[in-house]
Amino acid sequence: MRGVVMHAPGDVRVQDRPDPVIEEPTDAIIRVTATCICGSDLWPYRGAEPVHDAPMGHEYVGVVEQIGSEVSHIQVGDYVVGSFVASDNTCEICRAGFPSRCRHQVMMGTIGTQAEKARIPLADGTLVKVPGEPTEAQVRSLLAASDVLGTGWFAAVAAEAGPGKTVAVVGDGAVGLLAILAARRLGAERVIAMSRHADRQALARRFGATDIVEERGDEGVARIRELTGGYGAHSTIEAVGTQEAMLQAIHSTRPGGHVGYVGVSHGVSLDGLDLFFATVSLLGGPAPVRRFLPELIDLIMTDQIDPGAVFDLELPLERAAEGYRAMHERRATKVLLTL
Amino acid sequence: MRGVVMHAPGDVRVQDRPDPVIEEPTDAIIRVTATCICGSDLWPYRGAEPVHDAPMGHEYVGVVEQIGSEVSHIQVGDYVVGSFVASDNTCEICRAGFPSRCRHQVMMGTIGTQAEKARIPLADGTLVKVPGEPTEAQVRSLLAASDVLGTGWFAAVAAEAGPGKTVAVVGDGAVGLLAILAARRLGAERVIAMSRHADRQALARRFGATDIVEERGDEGVARIRELTGGYGAHSTIEAVGTQEAMLQAIHSTRPGGHVGYVGVSHGVSLDGLDLFFATVSLLGGPAPVRRFLPELIDLIMTDQIDPGAVFDLELPLERAAEGYRAMHERRATKVLLTL
Repeated sequence: MRGVVMHAPGDVRVQDRPDPVIEEPTDAIIRVTATCICGSDLWPYRGAEPVHDAPMGHEYVGVVEQIGSEVSHIQVGDYVVGSFVASDNTCEICRAGFPSRCRHQVMMGTIGTQAEKARIPLADGTLVKVPGEPTEAQVRSLLAASDVLGTGWFAAVAAEAGPGKTVAVVGDGAVGLLAILAARRLGAERVIAMSRHADRQALARRFGATDIVEERGDEGVARIRELTGGYGAHSTIEAVGTQEAMLQAIHSTRPGGHVGYVGVSHGVSLDGLDLFFATVSLLGGPAPVRRFLPELIDLIMTDQIDPGAVFDLELPLERAAEGYRAMHERRATKVLLTL
Repeated sequence: MRGVVMHAPGDVRVQDRPDPVIEEPTDAIIRVTATCICGSDLWPYRGAEPVHDAPMGHEYVGVVEQIGSEVSHIQVGDYVVGSFVASDNTCEICRAGFPSRCRHQVMMGTIGTQAEKARIPLADGTLVKVPGEPTEAQVRSLLAASDVLGTGWFAAVAAEAGPGKTVAVVGDGAVGLLAILAARRLGAERVIAMSRHADRQALARRFGATDIVEERGDEGVARIRELTGGYGAHSTIEAVGTQEAMLQAIHSTRPGGHVGYVGVSHGVSLDGLDLFFATVSLLGGPAPVRRFLPELIDLIMTDQIDPGAVFDLELPLERAAEGYRAMHERRATKVLLTL
C-alpha cells in the first residue's frame, strides 16, 4: 500500500509500505477513507522532535476490512472512527473517562494512518461505528472528531466551559478553533478567541467566538482581565504547547477558574509558587477523545455541528508533502488527505 | 499589648506592640483567646524566606471587643473564628468559593495574630460566629479550623477525596494529618499516609489513615502503585511544598486522578511534558478556609471531629520562642499558644 513516511525533518515522502496484517486477535484492519495532517506532526517536521523514517499520521476514518478472532463489537464493512490512541475501553482508567491513558494504550502515530490501510489495535475498544452512510461533509467532520474536535472538546470540558462562563482560548490552530465550537456547544456565554490571523478569526467567529483578542503574553492577559471586570476568564483553553501560551492561559484565568491544556508541551516549565498563587485548576494531556466519540458522531450525523469546516486544504494522499509544507508555512490551518 | 515578632531568621521575641485600632469601618478588634505557630512560619524562621522585624501569626480564635461602623453580621462579645486571609465574602471570587483569593484580600500574616489582640479586616466577611461556649478541647479544634484543618480540608476537596476513592497524603505535618481526617470525613475508602515518624503515624491512624507508606520519592511512588493495582491513587494530597513532595504527589496519582496541593511552594518547578503525560487534575494554592468554616465549626461544636488533637505542645504566648524552636527541631508537630 501507499503511505506517508517522514525520513527527516522537512523530508516527507509517499511511498510503498507493507500492507498491515492482523497481529493480535483484538486487531482490525481498516481501509482508510480519509486522513489528515496534525499540528503535532509539525513538531518533528520542524526539527523540534527527533524523527527518522517514521510512518506518519494518527487521524482516520475508514471501513473495516478484516477483524481478529477476538473482535466482536465491530464487523467487516462497518464505517468507523477512532481516536489517536487505541484503548481497551475496559480498564479502570478507560472507565474513569481517560482512554487516552488506557493501561494497554497504543499510540496510533506509531502505526501511521496517513496510508491506504491501517491496523487498529484493540478494535472493540478503539473504534466507534458510524450509523448510516456519511455524506462528504460528514466524512470531513468525522475525521475532525478523530483528533482535533475531540481534543478541543476535551479542553473545553477540562476547562469546565459551561453556562454563564467566559472562556478564553489561547491558540488559533484547528484544536483551538474547535475548542471554541465545543465551549459554545457546552453552553459558554462568552468565548474569547486569541488570534492575530484574519482567516482564523473568521473561522473562530463561525464556530461561535464572541470576542477576539489580538494581544499576546502579558498584554493578552491584561486584555482578558479588562474584558472580565478585572477577574480573568472562568475557563481558559491552551492549545499551543509553548511556555508563552501556557503562562498566558494560566494568568488569564481567575482564581478558582479552570485551565484545560492540550497543546503538546515543548519546553514548558511551570514555577510552583506562581501556580500556587494562580489558584486555578489545571487539567490537560493527551485528550481522551474516545470518551466523546459517540456524542460527537451523533452531533455530526444529525448535522448539528460542522467541525469539518476546519479543513481548508484538501489533497490526494500522494501529495501529502505539499500538505505538510502548506501547514508549516501557515498557508493552511488543517490539511485533509483524500484516498 | 504583647505580641510575637520575628526579628530575623531564628530570632523570635515576645514584646510590646501597639494595641490595634479600628482603621476601616469594616474592621473588628478581637481579644485573641488562642493562637498557634504554623508550619509556614518555619520558612522565614529557617531563612528560606526573608524576614525582618515582622509581627507573626495568622491563626486565631477570639472574642470580638470592638467593631467598625459598617460591621453588621458580627457583634461585640461574639466568640469567633476566621481564616488566615481576610475576605469580603461578596466578590465574585469569594462567591465562587475562593475567599483566599478575594478581590480585597488581606493576609492576616501581615497583621500578626500571635498577640493579645488583633485587627480583623472585612470582619463581616472574614469572621464566623461560634454558637454557644466552646469547651477547652473545642477551642483547640476551632483554632485548628482557622488554618491547618481548613487547609487540609481544602486539599482533600481539591483532590476530590470521596466514596470509593483511594487517597494518598504526602506530608505528615499538621496539614497532612488533618487532610487525612478530612478525606475520611468526605467518605474516602482508603487513606494512605506517607510518613516516617512513629508519633505522626499514630496520629495519622487516629485521624483515619488505613495504610502507612514510609518510602519517599520514586520509591514512595512505586509503593503507592503497588497498593493500588498498578494504577496509582485516585486522589493525592501534597502538604509540604518541596519539589520532591510535589513530584511524589503527581506521580502517585493515576491518569484522570486529582492532586490537591497546599504546601507553600519553595523551589518547585514542574516540567510541562511530565505534567502533560501525568494527565491529572491539579488544584492548589492558599486554601479558601472561609468556605468551609461554617461546616467545620458545626462538626467541632457537635464533637464529631477532634482536629485539636494535632496540637502536641501548649505554651503561654510569652514562651512563643520555645514553641518555634520545638517545631523547628521537629519535637512538636503543632504548637498552641495560650493567652
